[in-house]
Amino acid sequence: MPTHVVNYESDEGIRCHDHTGEYRWTESWAIWAAEIWIPHVRVCQEGGQPGQPPGPPITQPALGIVAVSELPATMFCTAKPPGSVSPAKRQIKEVKETKITINCVTFPLPGEGPEQQLLKPDEWSYCDYFWTDKKDPQGTTSLPGFEVLLQKQLKGKQMQKEMSEFIHERIKIEEEYAKNLSKLSLSPLAAQEEGTLGEAWTQLKKSLHDEAEVHLKFSNKLHSEVEKPLLTFRGDNFKKDLKKYDHHIADLRKQLASRYASVEKARKALADRQKDLEVKTQQLEIKLSNKTEEDIKKARRKSTQAGDDLMRCVDLYNQTQSKWFEEMVTTSMELEKLEVERIEWIQQHLRQYTTLRHETDMFNQSTVEPVDQLLQNVDPAKDRELWVKENNTGEVRPVDMDI
Amino acid sequence: MPTHVVNYESDEGIRCHDHTGEYRWTESWAIWAAEIWIPHVRVCQEGGQPGQPPGPPITQPALGIVAVSELPATMFCTAKPPGSVSPAKRQIKEVKETKITINCVTFPLPGEGPEQQLLKPDEWSYCDYFWTDKKDPQGTTSLPGFEVLLQKQLKGKQMQKEMSEFIHERIKIEEEYAKNLSKLSLSPLAAQEEGTLGEAWTQLKKSLHDEAEVHLKFSNKLHSEVEKPLLTFRGDNFKKDLKKYDHHIADLRKQLASRYASVEKARKALADRQKDLEVKTQQLEIKLSNKTEEDIKKARRKSTQAGDDLMRCVDLYNQTQSKWFEEMVTTSMELEKLEVERIEWIQQHLRQYTTLRHETDMFNQSTVEPVDQLLQNVDPAKDRELWVKENNTGEVRPVDMDI
Repeated sequence: MPTHVVNYESDEGIRCHDHTGEYRWTESWAIWAAEIWIPHVRVCQEGGQPGQPPGPPITQPALGIVAVSELPATMFCTAKPPGSVSPAKRQIKEVKETKITINCVTFPLPGEGPEQQLLKPDEWSYCDYFWTDKKDPQGTTSLPGFEVLLQKQLKGKQMQKEMSEFIHERIKIEEEYAKNLSKLSLSPLAAQEEGTLGEAWTQLKKSLHDEAEVHLKFSNKLHSEVEKPLLTFRGDNFKKDLKKYDHHIADLRKQLASRYASVEKARKALADRQKDLEVKTQQLEIKLSNKTEEDIKKARRKSTQAGDDLMRCVDLYNQTQSKWFEEMVTTSMELEKLEVERIEWIQQHLRQYTTLRHETDMFNQSTVEPVDQLLQNVDPAKDRELWVKENNTGEVRPVDMDI
Repeated sequence: MPTHVVNYESDEGIRCHDHTGEYRWTESWAIWAAEIWIPHVRVCQEGGQPGQPPGPPITQPALGIVAVSELPATMFCTAKPPGSVSPAKRQIKEVKETKITINCVTFPLPGEGPEQQLLKPDEWSYCDYFWTDKKDPQGTTSLPGFEVLLQKQLKGKQMQKEMSEFIHERIKIEEEYAKNLSKLSLSPLAAQEEGTLGEAWTQLKKSLHDEAEVHLKFSNKLHSEVEKPLLTFRGDNFKKDLKKYDHHIADLRKQLASRYASVEKARKALADRQKDLEVKTQQLEIKLSNKTEEDIKKARRKSTQAGDDLMRCVDLYNQTQSKWFEEMVTTSMELEKLEVERIEWIQQHLRQYTTLRHETDMFNQSTVEPVDQLLQNVDPAKDRELWVKENNTGEVRPVDMDI
């Protein structure tokens, strides 16, 4: 495993770290993740195609990275102290287990290994909380943490769709209401009322028509400014994108499982070879023959080869796990961003709903005002004058008949 | 025909008028009608049973009337100058016709008789404008002026009923709207939305329920405070009362027609008797016999009797016309009052309608406020924190596998 050097430029200048010392590695890891890789992901997300996960970190002069060599492969490595024993010899010594592999993913045991800082402390970021697989209540199957995030997305999409449906129902109610009000406003009822009262009554009907128009306008605006945006926000592509994320992460998990199987196989092969070497060494101690010494040399060579094999398999496993880790962080941050956008989008359009409701009430108020005005002007004396002028039969009073 | 004395008390003291002089009569008539009789009718109307026409004027100390003798019979008489000729002699002289009888009602001819002042000047009172019968467009039948007033009442009643129906339709629309809003508010759509956004969404639904309640309350109040008062104002008794007025006035018109027929008959009888007397007088000039002189005496007696008969018939006719006139004034003023009440009643309840509409808009406004509040509080970071706390699978990050 190579020793990596991270050179990067911060406000304080260029700093270099080597990764052979445990402390230094941890320090560089945290700094690398928080200051370089996560901002890099953000830049890729903001600048990149929506729904496309960013690629692995690349040299980003704008971000001040001078050189990053094979970083993904090491960013989650535990420290490897200098001068460590060869794999072949390691098996012989009693070594305290510090790690555990669950569903082909390797975690430090509690209290073991360097303390982990959250990638994004105090942010409750998706990228920090979904590393383990989730056991179902029966404990028979387990769901990758990433699937939990995907389900949240699907549920969010469903909620958004249901809100749109809800608004659609509201629109239908408003349309029906407006239709009924409008129809009533055209009713001939009491159309023959006369004078100032007749004017007020006519205005009352006209205002009902205006009221209907207000509700129709409300329903139209609800459609274009609330229902439609809620419905069309993240169209059919969204689920396709989620599927892509899903497959991508799942593929990496499958690859990880396959690499893990290779490690297990190589570990078993090494154990077999070491046992063979031990047997042959014991035989040598008893017989001490040339042929046996040749056998031991051969067995030792094979054991060394098996050790190299295991080392290569572990390296490949770690590379794949690193790749998966990287994609997990990148994609979960993308999902997190999508969720923020979804909430803000819904918030914005539900606010538009309340704005339209307020507007509707205001416009409705104004439809009543002319009725109030004309009702204030209702004057029975004036109405009598108008009616009498129109309908009088004669004002000459009768007089006594003469004889 | 007796000479009438009206003594009444005004702000200026007690005034007395005799009715033998034309000018004085007219003056007293106008004063009597405007200051005594019409206020008297008002008092009777205001204090009396609704729908019951007031009785004939009676002594009203409160109004300052000291004595009114047989006033109704004379209030529309033209002046009768003192020392007028007897009916028998009148027929012989050439007298310019100053009056015309139309449908058994006697009117002064235009420009003839004393100038008539309106009973209630500047008020466009029903009692001043419906004396003549109304000819239909074909001119074949005629409708009494009073019927025009009754039709106005019936139409008013119909308008009031139709307004009530209109409000009823509005109520049904509101109920339907409220029912639909309420139903939608209980919809499970997007009920699984979480966090602050979920709270805002739940409030949006709750507010929809409140909105439904506002409209239901509106419809209930419309029913009790607008529809019902408009519907029940002047119930079934109203049309019965109108029928009573109608029959009462129509009966008087029939009586007037009968009295008029009697007058015509008596006038013809007098003419016959006068012709007979003339013939007999001519015979006397030729024959000069005792028997003829006796015949002339007899004919003269019969002629005088016929003259007295006619005078009695005319007096009865005038009395009936006077009674009709009086009832016309009383009842048309009652109808006028009813119309004022109707208009004010409708005005009052349509104002209640607009008040309820305003209230509804105000209450509606207030239903949106809590949604606005919670939408303002929507916080994607907070929602993520809540969700991550609930659903996280594990924050321990994977590490490199050791060999």
